[in-house]
Amino acid sequence: MAQFINTKETLVTEAIDGNLRTAGGLLVRLDGFPHIKVVLRNDWDKSKVALISGGGSGHEPAHVGYIGKGMLTAAVCGDVFASPSVDAVLAGILAVSGSAGCLLIVKNYTGDRLNFGLAAERARAYGIKVAMVIVDDDIALPDLPQARGVAGTLFVHKIAGALAEAGADLDTVCAAATRVIDNVCSIGMSLDTCTVPGSPKEERIEAGKAELGLGIHGESGVELVDFVSARDAMSLVLERLKPHAGNAPLVALLNNLGGTTPLEMAILAEELAKSDVIEGLQYLVGPAPMMTSLDMRGFSVSLLSMCDDDLALLQAPVDMTNWPGCRTIDAPIVHPIPDGLTPIKPIPSNDPAIARFIKRCCDVFIKAECTLNVLDAQSGDGDTGSTLAGAARALKDAIPRLPQADLTQLYRAIGLELSQTMGGSSGVLLAIFFSAVGDAASSGQSNVQALTSGLVRVQEVGGAHPGDRTMIDALAPALKALPNGFAAAAQAARAGADHTAEIVKAKAGRASYISEDRLKGHNDPGAEAVALLFESLTE
Amino acid sequence: MAQFINTKETLVTEAIDGNLRTAGGLLVRLDGFPHIKVVLRNDWDKSKVALISGGGSGHEPAHVGYIGKGMLTAAVCGDVFASPSVDAVLAGILAVSGSAGCLLIVKNYTGDRLNFGLAAERARAYGIKVAMVIVDDDIALPDLPQARGVAGTLFVHKIAGALAEAGADLDTVCAAATRVIDNVCSIGMSLDTCTVPGSPKEERIEAGKAELGLGIHGESGVELVDFVSARDAMSLVLERLKPHAGNAPLVALLNNLGGTTPLEMAILAEELAKSDVIEGLQYLVGPAPMMTSLDMRGFSVSLLSMCDDDLALLQAPVDMTNWPGCRTIDAPIVHPIPDGLTPIKPIPSNDPAIARFIKRCCDVFIKAECTLNVLDAQSGDGDTGSTLAGAARALKDAIPRLPQADLTQLYRAIGLELSQTMGGSSGVLLAIFFSAVGDAASSGQSNVQALTSGLVRVQEVGGAHPGDRTMIDALAPALKALPNGFAAAAQAARAGADHTAEIVKAKAGRASYISEDRLKGHNDPGAEAVALLFESLTE
Repeated sequence: MAQFINTKETLVTEAIDGNLRTAGGLLVRLDGFPHIKVVLRNDWDKSKVALISGGGSGHEPAHVGYIGKGMLTAAVCGDVFASPSVDAVLAGILAVSGSAGCLLIVKNYTGDRLNFGLAAERARAYGIKVAMVIVDDDIALPDLPQARGVAGTLFVHKIAGALAEAGADLDTVCAAATRVIDNVCSIGMSLDTCTVPGSPKEERIEAGKAELGLGIHGESGVELVDFVSARDAMSLVLERLKPHAGNAPLVALLNNLGGTTPLEMAILAEELAKSDVIEGLQYLVGPAPMMTSLDMRGFSVSLLSMCDDDLALLQAPVDMTNWPGCRTIDAPIVHPIPDGLTPIKPIPSNDPAIARFIKRCCDVFIKAECTLNVLDAQSGDGDTGSTLAGAARALKDAIPRLPQADLTQLYRAIGLELSQTMGGSSGVLLAIFFSAVGDAASSGQSNVQALTSGLVRVQEVGGAHPGDRTMIDALAPALKALPNGFAAAAQAARAGADHTAEIVKAKAGRASYISEDRLKGHNDPGAEAVALLFESLTE
Repeated sequence: MAQFINTKETLVTEAIDGNLRTAGGLLVRLDGFPHIKVVLRNDWDKSKVALISGGGSGHEPAHVGYIGKGMLTAAVCGDVFASPSVDAVLAGILAVSGSAGCLLIVKNYTGDRLNFGLAAERARAYGIKVAMVIVDDDIALPDLPQARGVAGTLFVHKIAGALAEAGADLDTVCAAATRVIDNVCSIGMSLDTCTVPGSPKEERIEAGKAELGLGIHGESGVELVDFVSARDAMSLVLERLKPHAGNAPLVALLNNLGGTTPLEMAILAEELAKSDVIEGLQYLVGPAPMMTSLDMRGFSVSLLSMCDDDLALLQAPVDMTNWPGCRTIDAPIVHPIPDGLTPIKPIPSNDPAIARFIKRCCDVFIKAECTLNVLDAQSGDGDTGSTLAGAARALKDAIPRLPQADLTQLYRAIGLELSQTMGGSSGVLLAIFFSAVGDAASSGQSNVQALTSGLVRVQEVGGAHPGDRTMIDALAPALKALPNGFAAAAQAARAGADHTAEIVKAKAGRASYISEDRLKGHNDPGAEAVALLFESLTE
C-alpha cells in the first residue's frame, strides 16, 4: 500500500513542519532536525507549570495536536513508533521549564520511560523542578505488571493541562495526573493491522475476526475474537473494562485508532451510549481520532472514574480542535415531523373548457406512446412513450378531482399528480415545472410568463440547456413563440425537436452516455413529445 | 473487510443517533426514521436565514457534523451515497424555515438536484422563501458541463453560514453562496478505492498507481497516474487546479478523503505550503477530514479566490470542532536549541581514597566478566558480564578526570560516563541511578540515604520492583543493611541474589520473555553482579 509520504526517513520532520505551517503561528519547534523533534507553544512564557508529553510518532493528533492553551506545553516526537532520544527530551524540558517546573507525561513503554527518565535527571542537575508520571491504562494484559499506556493518556493531558493553565503548582498538577492514572482503564479492538510506512503490511487478522486488546504500535491483540457486529464489539470491550471501572460518575473516551470511518465511530458511540454493561457512564469524549495507531481500523474505549473537579477540568476550554470536548451522553432528542408533508388536497372545481383542454393534451401522449417508445429505443430503454402515456392516463382519471377553476392551484395539482404517478427524473422535473408555473401564476404572471418561469426553474434544477438534446430544445422555442399563437409555437417546437436529430453530443440526461452514431438522425423523444403536443393544439 | 456496523440497512440511522447522543444536546432530529433522516440545531429559533444541506451519507463529518452556530441549520441525509427523498428534504425545509426563508446548498448530482428541487417547489407552495444553489467545484471532468460538487461545498457552508448567522437576508446569503461557487475549484487524488458497507471492495487501483480526479461516491478517477511521492502528488493536483484558480488572495481547503493518516495529511500540507505552483495562496483550511468518501485513502484540494469579507467569514467562530479553522500559511518558526544539552564537564579533583575505591569496584566487574556472561546466557544473550566489564574499564580510564573530591559532582559524573559508555537499558538505568544519587547527596542526604534515593528513582523509571528478578533484588536489601556495615550489606546482597534463582516468573526486563525452566536455578546476572561487588568490598 502506497502512502502519501516522500521518504521514510523524512516523514516525521516533514509532518511536523506541515503542522507548524498550518498552525496559524501558535506552534514553534526547536532547531535540531532530524534528531531533536520538539514542538512547543509559541505563546509560552514559563510562568506556569509546563506539561511535556511525547513518544513515538504515528499516534497523531497525539501529541503535537494537543499543544496549546489548556493542554500540552510541548511534545517531544520520536520516529514512527520509536522513543525520542534523551537529548530531545532534555531540549524540550529546558525550552519550556520556568521556576514552576514541568511535568513529563510518559506512556508506559521501556524506551520512553528510560529516555524521559534520564532527561529528567539531567534537567534536575540544572536545578529544574521535574516531575514524571507514567500512564499505564491498558488492561489488555492483566498478568503484565507494567501495563501499556494508550488513549487514557488524553485524560491526563486534559486534566493536568487545565490545572496547569489555571496556575496550579507542580505538586498539585502531578497529584492530579497520578490520580487520573490510578482511575483510568482502556482497551482497544481492531479489524485490521496498521501499515507502518516503509514496511510491508502484516496481514495478521483474518476476515471475520477482530483483535481485542491490541497495542498502539502494531502489537498483536491478546485475543482473536469473532467479529459479529458493532454492537457485539462494543459489548465485548465494555465487558472487559467493567471489572476495572471505578465508581460513578464515569466518563468514556471513544478513540478512533485511525482507519475507522466517522460513520462507524458514530455507530460505536450509539452502542456505547445505549449499552447497560457499564453503570454510571454519564459523559463522553469523542468519538474522534485522538491516540491513533497509523491507519488501524479499530477503536478503543477508556473509562475514567471522575472525582473532585475532573468534569470542570475536562470541560475547560482549549484552543485546539483536536480535543473534541467532553459532553453528557443524552438520549436523542426527536421532534415531530412538521405539518405539510402530506400536500393539501386541492378542492375540486369545474371549468369544462379547462377539463377538455387537459383531456386533449393527455390524449396526445396516449396516442404517441408507440412512436415515442420507438424513438427512445435509439437512445435509451424505449419507454419514454409508455411513461408519458401512463402519466397521461392517470392525469385523465384525475381530471374530476382537479381544481379546474383556479389556475394556480390547478398547475400545482397537476405537478403533484405527475410526481406521484410518473417515475424517474422526468416525473420529478415535470412536477417541478408545474409547481413553478403555479407559483408564478399565483404572483400574477400571465400564462406564457408563468410557463416560461417554470421552464427556467426546470433548467436550474435539472441543469439542461438548449442544445443539450432534451425536451427543452422544443419547449423553449415553443414558449418563446407562444405569444404569437399556437401555430407559431407548434412550428417552433417542431423545428426545435427536429434539430435534436443533429445533436449527437448530448450533454444532459441519459442520452449523454450514448454513442454519437446511435443518436444521429433521431429526434430526442422528449422534444418530439413537446412538438407533437403543440402541433395537436393547432388542430 | 469487516466494518463496525450492525446492518447495512440501519447504519445511517444508528450513526445519526450516535451523533445526537454525543452532541451535548446541541442537535435534534425529526421523527420519521428510516425514511426521513433530518438533523437540525436544537437552538434554532427561525429568526435568521436557515441553511440546509445534505445528500447521500458516507461523507462524514459532512453534513451533520457542520450543523451549528455559524454553519448549517439542518442536514438532510440519504443512505450511503444515495440522495434523500423529496419528503425528507421538505420536512427539513418546513422544520427550520421562518420568515427569513432558507437556502438549500446542493452538490451537483442529479438525484440531489431533483429531490431538493422538487422539495423547494413544494415548500414555495406554502409561501416559504426557498433559494437553492448547486455546487459544482470539481474540475476533474472538463468536458462535462455539469461538474460534480465535492469538498469546495464546505466553503459555501462556512461563508453562507457566517453571513446567515450575522443576520444577512436570503438574497445576500444566496448571492454570496453563488459567488463562492463561481470562485471555487477542487480536485482529488486517491491511492485506493473506498469500501461501501455491504458491498465487496472494488480493487481498481493497482499498487504504485493513484487515481486523479475521482468522485466522492467511488466513481473512477479520470486518470490513473504513477504514484511517486507526496510531493509529486501535490504538485500534480495543484497543476490541474492552476488554470481554474482565480485571483489572489487564495485560500486552500485540504481535505482528507477518509483513510489517509494525519501524518500523511501533515506531509501533504507541508508540500502544499511549500509549493510554488499556485500563486497567491495565503490561507489554509485543514488538513482535516471534511468531505470524505468513506475510508478512501486520498485527499482533495479546493481553492477559493477570496473577495469581499470572505476571510472574515471563513474565520468567524463556529461551535463545532469539525470545522478546523482557516489560518494563514506560515513558514515554520524555529527556535534555537536551549543551552544545556552538552553536559557541563565536571572539574577534575583528587581524592586518592575515592579513586582507589572506584578502581576496586571496577575491578570486581572486570574480573566477573566471564562468570556473569555464563549466567546471562541462561536468560539472555550472554553479554551482561561484557557490558559491565566494558563500562568498568571505561570508568577506570576516566578516574583521573573525575571530580573525586566533590561527592555530588562525582556521582553525576559517573552517571554521565556510564550513559556514554554503556549501551542499552542498563546503561540508562545506571545513569539515572547515579544522577539521582548525586541530586540526593547535593540536598544533604547521607551516602546511604542518597544511594537509597537513587534506587527509588530507578524503580520509578524502570518499573522494576523487588521480586522481579533484576539487580534490585540484591541492591535493595544491600542498601537496607548498609548502615550495619559492608559485611551485613554483602550478606543481604548475596541472599537476595541467590533468591533470584527461585524467581521463575520474571516480571520486568528481558527475562520476562524467557521460559520458567530456563530461569530456575540460575541467579539473575545483575543481582549476582551486585552481590559480587558488595562481597568484594568486605575483603
